[in-house]
Order: sequence, then structure tokens, then C-alpha cells
Amino acid sequence: MTDWKAEAERLDKADPLARYRGDFLLDDDLAYLDGNSLGALPRATPARIEGVVQEEWGKGLISSWNTANWIDLPQRVGAKIAPLVGAHENEIVVADSVSVNLFKLISAALSMRDGRKVVLSEPGNFPTDLYMIDGLEGQGLAQRRLAERDGIEAALDNDVALLLLTHVHYKSGEMFDMARLTKAAHDAGALVLWDLSHSVGAVPVDLNGAGADFAVGCGYKYLNGGPGAPGFAFVAQRHHDGLQQPLSGWMGHAKPFEFSDDYRPAPGVDQLLCGTPPILSMSALEVGVDLMTGIGIDALVKKSRQLSEFTRAAMAQALPELPCISPDEPERRGSQLSFRHDHAYELCQALIARKVIGDFRAPDILRLGFAPAYVRFADCWRAVSELRDILESGEWQKAEYAERAPVT
Amino acid sequence: MTDWKAEAERLDKADPLARYRGDFLLDDDLAYLDGNSLGALPRATPARIEGVVQEEWGKGLISSWNTANWIDLPQRVGAKIAPLVGAHENEIVVADSVSVNLFKLISAALSMRDGRKVVLSEPGNFPTDLYMIDGLEGQGLAQRRLAERDGIEAALDNDVALLLLTHVHYKSGEMFDMARLTKAAHDAGALVLWDLSHSVGAVPVDLNGAGADFAVGCGYKYLNGGPGAPGFAFVAQRHHDGLQQPLSGWMGHAKPFEFSDDYRPAPGVDQLLCGTPPILSMSALEVGVDLMTGIGIDALVKKSRQLSEFTRAAMAQALPELPCISPDEPERRGSQLSFRHDHAYELCQALIARKVIGDFRAPDILRLGFAPAYVRFADCWRAVSELRDILESGEWQKAEYAERAPVT
Repeated sequence: MTDWKAEAERLDKADPLARYRGDFLLDDDLAYLDGNSLGALPRATPARIEGVVQEEWGKGLISSWNTANWIDLPQRVGAKIAPLVGAHENEIVVADSVSVNLFKLISAALSMRDGRKVVLSEPGNFPTDLYMIDGLEGQGLAQRRLAERDGIEAALDNDVALLLLTHVHYKSGEMFDMARLTKAAHDAGALVLWDLSHSVGAVPVDLNGAGADFAVGCGYKYLNGGPGAPGFAFVAQRHHDGLQQPLSGWMGHAKPFEFSDDYRPAPGVDQLLCGTPPILSMSALEVGVDLMTGIGIDALVKKSRQLSEFTRAAMAQALPELPCISPDEPERRGSQLSFRHDHAYELCQALIARKVIGDFRAPDILRLGFAPAYVRFADCWRAVSELRDILESGEWQKAEYAERAPVT
Repeated sequence: MTDWKAEAERLDKADPLARYRGDFLLDDDLAYLDGNSLGALPRATPARIEGVVQEEWGKGLISSWNTANWIDLPQRVGAKIAPLVGAHENEIVVADSVSVNLFKLISAALSMRDGRKVVLSEPGNFPTDLYMIDGLEGQGLAQRRLAERDGIEAALDNDVALLLLTHVHYKSGEMFDMARLTKAAHDAGALVLWDLSHSVGAVPVDLNGAGADFAVGCGYKYLNGGPGAPGFAFVAQRHHDGLQQPLSGWMGHAKPFEFSDDYRPAPGVDQLLCGTPPILSMSALEVGVDLMTGIGIDALVKKSRQLSEFTRAAMAQALPELPCISPDEPERRGSQLSFRHDHAYELCQALIARKVIGDFRAPDILRLGFAPAYVRFADCWRAVSELRDILESGEWQKAEYAERAPVT
């Protein structure tokens, strides 16, 4: 039997990323394994936000659009995200939410595949991805088709305009082979839109290497942009000229301050800007992104895999009664592991009471996420050992752990 | 000849709202007449944001969705905006940007007027309003029609699904008679969507009194929500049941945390939520809204009219060569005055150099806004006297004042 506690200590000591935990505001006794839902607060963020609020807004007032370069934030932060996902700097812009960006890019894809209306996805995809297809279906512009993941390639027929998949599944952690599915879609004459919400900053993503057409991603998970941070959108350079999408707001106009009556899209991804961007939230996102690019994606990926692999092995040995539904091979999963249990909700609450924060996904999944910038191997071992204790002692049966909060 | 300086002093002394200027971070020697573009920073905002960042995000982490009630912010702030615009608390929600909310509500209106596709507006409306009609026209779902304001009622025929107007014109400050135009649209079988971006918090708005169907509004002008603060959306209660719009994101689902494959809209305006809301920006907005509702809309409107009327009269006497293009009667205009001059841009820059902040709107408009919560009559007089000095001295001809910034 492996001494997992000693092994965790050994790995933490050897961890080249260990020093980055101090860049986040996290109590030493907190095992935060939910950075895949809401990333931790970078220590540099409060000062930056105070500066944006007090100096830029408070003192600079309206002039800060120019003097503090608020106007360039969407492109600047987009360019910084680019190296994390294998994109060129001019292919990404930060704007709105993931949901709104999905709407723009599904629309853009449909307009490039005249005569085809089917948007193909998988059942159980993150809901907002499916709902945004529904929205366009309600407009009569799209037709939703779902195929189980092993049937996706077979479902790619001549009616499919777009394949829309979440690269790393939010619930199972399973990761698609981006290059293979992109090629399959292209072979069928369809375009591909990848949702990188559970990927960016934690797993290897090479959008251009895979030949991807479109992508969206989330700012508040591994990018540590804060609650409800704006999302980002990627459009491959070869599609910039023909790009067309219906959320044609004034900030996406070629010359917004000409106040013309007629919409003329800005070049490239700039047309994906719609309304005035939320500067406070976007500034916080920039701090989080700077931290991730400072560490570098290769080091992040390497540690992410070590963390999840350590946890998977320790859980399998210590708690074989809790089946892991995530793939066994690190290169086939994201930076998370999901375990099935009939009382996953109660287990999760009991863990939280012990300062081990994971989360629950209905109906029966306990999800542990491994944000490589600040999670320690000792945190992973604590999750395993506390969980074993909670199960063996029956503590999870306490009535208080069954009470449901509005957001679970 | 009136002694306007003395009159300003008298009015400031008698101003029951004078004490509220201290609630904003504004230098004493700054005449900030651009609150109609970006509202000033409430002194309470930095502490609130620090709390949201450090305590709620930093320490509460993911649990703050419940414990800090992040999940209720959109409805809570919406309910607080309601009394400022004559709405019921359950008729307003804060979400996304004005542009995105326009898209939702134009779509909603079109779906309620089957067979009609025309969206009627006026040329020279704020661009994003027109561009969002263009977006739906590009989808084949809408048809844009523009009529000059004196021809709007004549243009309301059987093809018009929706009349979309900005209540107070961003450039001229002219205010529509909301009740009259709403009735005219209804008489023609059309619905009405009012853009309150330049109205809310400064002019009397009675959405339900006028029988309005839909409205949107801006959080970063008179509501002092900070740069790019989220917008709000209003739907009259009678339309809640039939409401349908295409930006069907997961936060607008009846049960978002069931993670169902199929979209089922939340009741009422809650379905207008789309993606995860930007909590930092939305929290800042709440502080600004609290300040405005604390003062009360009647007092704000009264002072707004006094300020603009004082300025109009002083300008007319001191600088008759600068024609005011805003209506003469306070009840026919918003909380701003616009003056035409061939060198309006340079005049504006020269004013800014003297710490009198107004703004320029292409091609030839100098715009002065009167945010009643913090603008003093002395500020208005300073604008007039500095402007006279800048014109008489020829100072505006300095080369530096002609240099154009990206955001003008």
C-alpha cells in the first residue's frame, strides 16, 4: 500500500509551481478543488481593481477610455489568452459571456454554410451550449441534432453546418480529440466550434494546429478572472473576411464614434464586440490571465496531469467503492475527476465542512478540480483521506448536509 | 444683464441635494458635466467592491453564489431600478449590455407580432439601437424602417411590429412624449420598446403609466454603475407569459442547476438572464442605484431641470453665437444641453484643459450633461464663463486641442 501522504509531501517539495500558490489569496488550511468552477483570487487583483475604480474611473472619469486604454481591453486581454489555446493574437477577443459568444459564433457558422441548418452536439453537453442552439432553432435558423459521443462522426452528414462540442466535459471531465473531430467535421463540409470553458489554462489546446474554425471560453474558471468574468471568442483568421453575426452592437462597428446610422462591421474578431464592455470585470480578468501566461501553459498542463493522476490513483486504492467516471488516461481528460455516489451531494457538503471544497453536479456526481497554479498534492490527499473518514464514520448522514442551497 | 455667478451661488445654497456631491469622489475644482456619458464614482463603491473581491470572491469563493447572494443580484438591482422608471419590481432585471438587451427585446416583440416584421425607429437614433435592428434584419427576421420624428406616427402602419425609440436623444437631448407615442403605436397594433439610457435617474419616466411594453436602460450614466456597467431590461407584466427570446442562456432557465438538455424559460423577466452575470460590475451598479433611489427621482428631476434651465439661459445671454439645439422647454428635453459649433471638438478639449468636462459628438456638437446628484450650479456657470473666455481669447485654436483621441 502506497503511503500517499508521504508521496504528496514528496511531490509538493519537487513541484516547480509550488511558489505560485502564494500569488493567490487562499488560506493555508483550505483545499480548494473547485477552481474549475470559480478560480481563486489572485493577490494582485484587489490592487488592480482598486486602481481601476479609484484612479481610472474615480479620477480619470470619461477620459480613461483613452488614457487608461479601456477601449483596447477586449483585444489586449484576448491577445494574452491566445498563447494558452494555440491561437494568433488577432484571433481572440474578450466580450460578453460564453453564452452570448456562442450565439454569435453559431450564427456566424450558419451564415457560412448556406442551405445547411443542423448544429450537431452531444446530449449532456453543458446546458448553455445546447440552449443557444435552441435559441437559434426558435428563430427558425438552426436545427439541433444530438449524437452520443461515439456516434458523432456517423452523425456528420450533408445537413450539418456546425459541430459544437465542449472540449472537456463539465461533468465527466472527458476530453475530445480536437484534431480528429475537427477533421471529421471538415470532411463532412461542416465547421467546428469548440467550447474551451473547462480547458483553457489547464489542458493543451492547439486551435490552429487542429484547424478549428471557432471557439469560446470562460474567464472565471482556470483563468481566475472572478465571478462572472467575461468570456472570450476565437475565429480562425481564414474566416475573418466573411464573418457575419447578428449581435451587431456599436462597439463592433468599424468606426463606433462616427455614430453612423448604418452598421459596418469592424475587421476580424473586433466585430464580435457588441455593447460597452464591463471594465471592472474585464480588468480583473486581465490579472488572472497574466498570471497564467506568466507560468506558461506547458508547466500548467504538466502539473494538472500529475495532480489528477495522483488523486485518481490514491482514490482507487483508498476508496474503491467510489467509481471514477473520468477517463483513466490523463491525456484523455481535463483537469478534474468525477466520482459517482448516490449521496454525492451530502459527501460534498461534508467535505466542505472540513475545508475541502469540491462541487456536486446533479444527480450523483462529486467533482474535484485541479487548478494547477495553486492546488497542492497535499490538498488532493486531504480530499481522499477526509472523504474516506466521512464515509467510514457515516458523518455524511448528518441532516444538515442534505439541505439544498439555491446554487448547488 | 443677470449676474449669473451670484445666481449660481444663490441656487447652490438653496439646493436640497447639495449634500450629495460629497457622496461622490469628485475634486472640488472639477466641473463634471459628462455624467450622461459616464457617471461619477460614488464614495461607497470602492469599499463595496473591495468587499466583493476580498471577502466574497477571495474568502467565500464558490460558496458566495449562495452566502453573498450573487445569484439574486440581477433581480435585486432590477427591483431597485423599478421605482426610477415607473415599473413594478418584478418587471426589471439587470443583465448583459444595453445592446444585447435590445436584441432580446426586439426579438421578443417580433415573436408577439406574427406576420409583421417592420421595426420602426428614427434616423440618428443612438447607433446601437439601429444596429441591433440591422442584426435581426441580417437574420431575415426584421425589416428596418426609419422615419424622422415628426413623421413617426404617420409611418406606423399595419406592417410595424415594434416602435423602438430612445426616450431622450443622446445628441440633441430632445425627449419623446412616451405616453403619446406608445398610444400611437398601440393604436396601429404595434408594440413599443423604449431605450432609457439617457433618461433613467434624471428625467421622469412612467413606463406603466404610459403603457410601455418593453424598455432597456444603461447602468453607467446617471445610475453611476461604473464603466461598462451592465444594462437593464423591462418587460410589462402583461407580456410575461408569452415572453420568448433567442438568447436562451442557462441563467435564464427555470432550473439552471438541473443541467437539463432542454431549455425551459424561467418565469417573467428572469428568462432574460443569459450567461453568468459579471458580479464585480453588477455590485458596483447596485451602489450607484442605491444612491439614486435614496435621493428619490422627484428631487433628481427637479434639480436636473433647474440645472439645465440655468445653463440654457446663461448661455443664451453670454454666448448667443453658440446655438442650443436642445428644446427650450425643460419638460421636452433630457438632463443635457447640446450646442452647435464648427469647432465643437476643439472647444470641448479647451474646456477639459480648464477642468470643465463635457463631451463632443460628431460632427459639431458640444454636449453638457447635468447629473443632478452631484452637479453644482457653480459648475454650470463655470462652463459658460470658461467657454466665453476660450472663444473670446481664441485659445481653442491651439494645435493641441485639435488632436483626436481614439474615443472622442
